[in-house]
Amino acid sequence: MSLPRIAIDAMGGDEGVRVMVEGAALARRRHDQFQFLLVGDETQIKSALESHPNMRGASEILHCEDVVGGDEQPSKALRRAKTTSMGLAVNAVKQGKAGAAVSAGNTGALMAMSKIALRTMPGIDRPALAAVMPTLEDEDVIMLDLGANTEADARNLVQFAIMGAAYSRILLGRKPRVRLLNIGTEENKGFDRLRDAAADLQAAKGLDMQFDGYVESDKINRGEVDVVVTDGFSGNIALKAIEGTARFVTDLLRSAFTSSLRSKIGFLVSRPATELLKHHLDPNNHNGAVFLGLNGVVVKSHGSANAAGVANAVEVAARLLEDDITNRIAKDLAELGEARLRETNGGAASEGTGK
Amino acid sequence: MSLPRIAIDAMGGDEGVRVMVEGAALARRRHDQFQFLLVGDETQIKSALESHPNMRGASEILHCEDVVGGDEQPSKALRRAKTTSMGLAVNAVKQGKAGAAVSAGNTGALMAMSKIALRTMPGIDRPALAAVMPTLEDEDVIMLDLGANTEADARNLVQFAIMGAAYSRILLGRKPRVRLLNIGTEENKGFDRLRDAAADLQAAKGLDMQFDGYVESDKINRGEVDVVVTDGFSGNIALKAIEGTARFVTDLLRSAFTSSLRSKIGFLVSRPATELLKHHLDPNNHNGAVFLGLNGVVVKSHGSANAAGVANAVEVAARLLEDDITNRIAKDLAELGEARLRETNGGAASEGTGK
Repeated sequence: MSLPRIAIDAMGGDEGVRVMVEGAALARRRHDQFQFLLVGDETQIKSALESHPNMRGASEILHCEDVVGGDEQPSKALRRAKTTSMGLAVNAVKQGKAGAAVSAGNTGALMAMSKIALRTMPGIDRPALAAVMPTLEDEDVIMLDLGANTEADARNLVQFAIMGAAYSRILLGRKPRVRLLNIGTEENKGFDRLRDAAADLQAAKGLDMQFDGYVESDKINRGEVDVVVTDGFSGNIALKAIEGTARFVTDLLRSAFTSSLRSKIGFLVSRPATELLKHHLDPNNHNGAVFLGLNGVVVKSHGSANAAGVANAVEVAARLLEDDITNRIAKDLAELGEARLRETNGGAASEGTGK
Repeated sequence: MSLPRIAIDAMGGDEGVRVMVEGAALARRRHDQFQFLLVGDETQIKSALESHPNMRGASEILHCEDVVGGDEQPSKALRRAKTTSMGLAVNAVKQGKAGAAVSAGNTGALMAMSKIALRTMPGIDRPALAAVMPTLEDEDVIMLDLGANTEADARNLVQFAIMGAAYSRILLGRKPRVRLLNIGTEENKGFDRLRDAAADLQAAKGLDMQFDGYVESDKINRGEVDVVVTDGFSGNIALKAIEGTARFVTDLLRSAFTSSLRSKIGFLVSRPATELLKHHLDPNNHNGAVFLGLNGVVVKSHGSANAAGVANAVEVAARLLEDDITNRIAKDLAELGEARLRETNGGAASEGTGK
């Protein structure tokens, strides 16, 4: 099967063209069927391509001069959707010139442009931003929403659960274990919207997921849950607290290891161990936040990602395309609708749901 | 100055009497003016006291047989406020038999009992739970609310800021830098309640704090902020994400260090470094969450704290008593009221507040 092209916003991110093109080239070394639409300044892109002969014949350039600023207000950036590299990359997906878009630019602007250009898929009220994080086990955990929506009601949370589960199934190849983020695991904890969403997810038994109730934020990375579902405010708070603490502990470690000669020697001797730790915590190994619930695949690469990180984001986009995430989400939405119908009709399907 | 007694719920916590009494004795070795009211089973307390001759003459026992269960519903525990060790310790504060209460039992029950027995101080609508966390710098950061209230409006957030600042001033001995937890630092981020609280804190220039706007959760432990103010849901999510990630990274580190002989040798050589890390992250060095905003001091020691952790919680209670936290909060509340009055009267005080 030939994979649709991937549009790359070549101008986004802290280091711009060089890293974006190098990341695409790295991804193509591992997957030679990848084709790219590189959007941005033609001269810069051509110059960056010179170092990557494997990109020849695999990439088309779409020239533009305008770039969305990193700190620009999304509403302002939105007015230049037709002239910026970010806007044109997203638009290529809308027009079918690419199957997915990858950008390392301004998250809010990318979200706004993607929403307007691609619109939400049928049955989804609001898209969500999902990211992958390491766990103590071999498998990663997905968390969403991470800030696409500040608030979320029970209906949004149920949709986020379905979208996150579809993404997780593609990554793990099995039925994922899904939980709602809460401040306790007892039934009466948190908000009404959490209890309502839990009841809905428990009632819809045909969903392609295992719903396990609530999870507290100290258990996200223990390997006991595959998808953590929350509103964008709480998700953003949890994600950044996790990132910040991982950095905090490694910073402490670094200063502890360099505090005495004895420590320095110990550090050198045990370098393989600290390298393993670094590898496990390196955000570049988990790069690529995905906007789920749109008519098309859009992946946000971290602004500070290196080429390996960008390659990771490109591969995430390719996998979601290949495994048709939109169709997987649609299937579970249909099942949810049927479960609600069965319940409304007072059928036997409502037994044991606690409702 | 003679310090009022501290009431200790001797029965709470994972290990009960032995650790609570040992913690009190440890605190008294460092501060020989401390006096205690030990509440719980008399036989067990007497037996525990035998190992601590420095507690003789410094402690009175208040016997009771009933104990609040660790997983008990707060509403259920509340009915036994007059018979349980936790309820009687809090009640001793109400009756003036002690200046502060320390318990390592059920947090929800302790909050409920304290609220009912001590009531909120004048000008405070809701109490908040505040904890101290390590930073990259020498000074600790305080975060509140951590779950006493699931939600908080702008007025609650402003009161939390005042309470947290009073606590921080006692710990740091200087005007603390205060920020509201948000998902971005731009003015338009987050909820209306955050913007309203920020405007109020900016307008009240006479408060004994330096209000610096918003902080994101990856910056809590960088040493750039002394008090992080948030609602109980978000605060609980952030706190547990920080605790869980610190544990996650140290678990990864442990498994990395024991994965090869070379790593093991390195670990032994660099042990002082990892001991330093352990010391810095050990929750026992930062033990003692405080219920702020009540007519009396109540400190929650962590359920799994060891004797050093309990001693820490006891010392926190003593410091809050000694430095009269209630009076400090009252002063800032009065200033806030005056600032509002100045603004309502259209005085010059409203310049530059953005309102």
